[in-house]
Amino acid sequence: MGDRSLHYSAQDACVQVIDQRKLPQVLEWASLRELGEFSFAISHMQVRGAPLIGITAAYGLALALRQDPSLENLHRASAELNAARPTAINLAWALQRVRAAVVDCDPSERAGRALAEAASIADEDVANCRAIGEHGLLLLRELAAAKNGAEVQVMTHCNAGWLAALEWGTALAPIYLAQQAGLSIHVWVSETRPRNQGINLTAWELQQAGINHTVIVDNAAGHLMQQGKVDCCLVGSDRTAANGDVCNKVGTYLKALAARANGLPFYVALPLSTFDWDSASGADIPIEERAAQEVLLGNGSSRAYNPAFDITPAELVTALITERGVFAAETSALNSLRAQINL
Amino acid sequence: MGDRSLHYSAQDACVQVIDQRKLPQVLEWASLRELGEFSFAISHMQVRGAPLIGITAAYGLALALRQDPSLENLHRASAELNAARPTAINLAWALQRVRAAVVDCDPSERAGRALAEAASIADEDVANCRAIGEHGLLLLRELAAAKNGAEVQVMTHCNAGWLAALEWGTALAPIYLAQQAGLSIHVWVSETRPRNQGINLTAWELQQAGINHTVIVDNAAGHLMQQGKVDCCLVGSDRTAANGDVCNKVGTYLKALAARANGLPFYVALPLSTFDWDSASGADIPIEERAAQEVLLGNGSSRAYNPAFDITPAELVTALITERGVFAAETSALNSLRAQINL
Repeated sequence: MGDRSLHYSAQDACVQVIDQRKLPQVLEWASLRELGEFSFAISHMQVRGAPLIGITAAYGLALALRQDPSLENLHRASAELNAARPTAINLAWALQRVRAAVVDCDPSERAGRALAEAASIADEDVANCRAIGEHGLLLLRELAAAKNGAEVQVMTHCNAGWLAALEWGTALAPIYLAQQAGLSIHVWVSETRPRNQGINLTAWELQQAGINHTVIVDNAAGHLMQQGKVDCCLVGSDRTAANGDVCNKVGTYLKALAARANGLPFYVALPLSTFDWDSASGADIPIEERAAQEVLLGNGSSRAYNPAFDITPAELVTALITERGVFAAETSALNSLRAQINL
Repeated sequence: MGDRSLHYSAQDACVQVIDQRKLPQVLEWASLRELGEFSFAISHMQVRGAPLIGITAAYGLALALRQDPSLENLHRASAELNAARPTAINLAWALQRVRAAVVDCDPSERAGRALAEAASIADEDVANCRAIGEHGLLLLRELAAAKNGAEVQVMTHCNAGWLAALEWGTALAPIYLAQQAGLSIHVWVSETRPRNQGINLTAWELQQAGINHTVIVDNAAGHLMQQGKVDCCLVGSDRTAANGDVCNKVGTYLKALAARANGLPFYVALPLSTFDWDSASGADIPIEERAAQEVLLGNGSSRAYNPAFDITPAELVTALITERGVFAAETSALNSLRAQINL
């Protein structure tokens, strides 16, 4: 689709990212050079979205190795970046890929190889998201066919578009491709409190692309499904367990419950890098707790609790849409997928 | 408990209400004298909460009759007040009570009788809320006993406290009485987008009363229940159908789904005036749509859809807590209750 949410400039040895905290008011790019700037960008959510966090960290590690290519620095910088946020597994996955690519090579080659690996991760992410989009598009076409071509109503949560990945996005990739294919589509964008990624990022992306959409508060999701105004839910994932339990932005679980109660498909779109095969179930996934101040608005007198993610049990997930195709969210299907990848 | 959210001054022929749009920043009282001021207070949510809307409208009609006690004005003023908000049935119910009390009497007596009827509605509301509190307290005691006295974790939604009624509130009445009874209790207060009645009103009430509470975003409700951090949900109702379907602030349905999925009781506290016996089910209840601007924050470029209420199917409701006791949310139990009232 052309837009990328991150650019690496070899000339300036610098990564440019959109400061997503400032959207939709202003589209402002931030330059990341030092390790601390990369950690800050991730922990303070200048960049967010599981795939983009991974890519940003990979470049951060590569640039840290330009300054000091020692093994000590490789491990120190990797640990610092990995600690920036706890839940999205792509962060650990991307850092592991870069470490594996450079750990055994001559220190003088480390930065170059790390940069090449980061670029590979980035290019693969674009291809993967495009493939997710194509697999997801088939599901949207089925829904359109079942409605005799009437507008397909998709509900999403948080932002899983090109801002969250590099291009296309995960959950939004099928929607972008549906638009290109001329499918009639409308997206319900839930606000996504407390940080409002739905209204601030997803609505902005869809506006830019000219895709028909309507913003709702998170509370209205169930009512819309009861009223027959939704044909499917389509969300991303920050980490997916080996049994198909899906960790995603807090509130995803409530949408999945409402989808099940109303007989609607609940699709999760994710690159394979989002699987955590070491987590047997969602119970093994650490849930980030963020600052109370994100919740409290002007009301400083009360205490707040602010978990950033929740777990949608696999049994509520209709299918996982990956770059390798569509899979059931259950252990045996995922074991087959895992065996395929390891071939 | 002493605090009342509305006062009538006979000397000034004026009603004082808290301008709830300004809480928690400032506790400011507004004076209502003219019919238009009453309609505005209800439609613009200076006052909100099903019981309080009813009481405010009753006084508004009475004061309108002071200016013009004709039957024409009785019907005109009643119609104007009734149109201020569509969903909470207490509005129509209270206006009907005042109309019935004055329609057949001499015009010279109408204003006086209407005022007396409004005062009766107000006093009965306080007694009813207190009785709801006592019935609900028994349920909280059961939960406490099952936990061997450990802190009972109650999740509520929106505001159903003394700000929403006159004193005590509906859903918060059992909590206030639990505190007085020395029960260890903690309340999860969900923000309640888009107007934030949870964080702005319920958290404020609980702070004032020194009751232990924590604010969450609406999205976190399911996660907390999954994590075993909630013992029951306790909410109010704006209108309840004859089959036990509960209409309440949008987002209530999602909490009820999560409570059911996690095996938790879901209690609805409501005065009998909240029943709409003419609504066979929730499908008959009109759902107010409010302005898109409540949802859109600074983002003016997208469209928004803003239903203010949703319907929780009776099958998800563990029990209805009324001033007459605790009832199953199903047609036969409610038919018996209705027969009792009509005796």
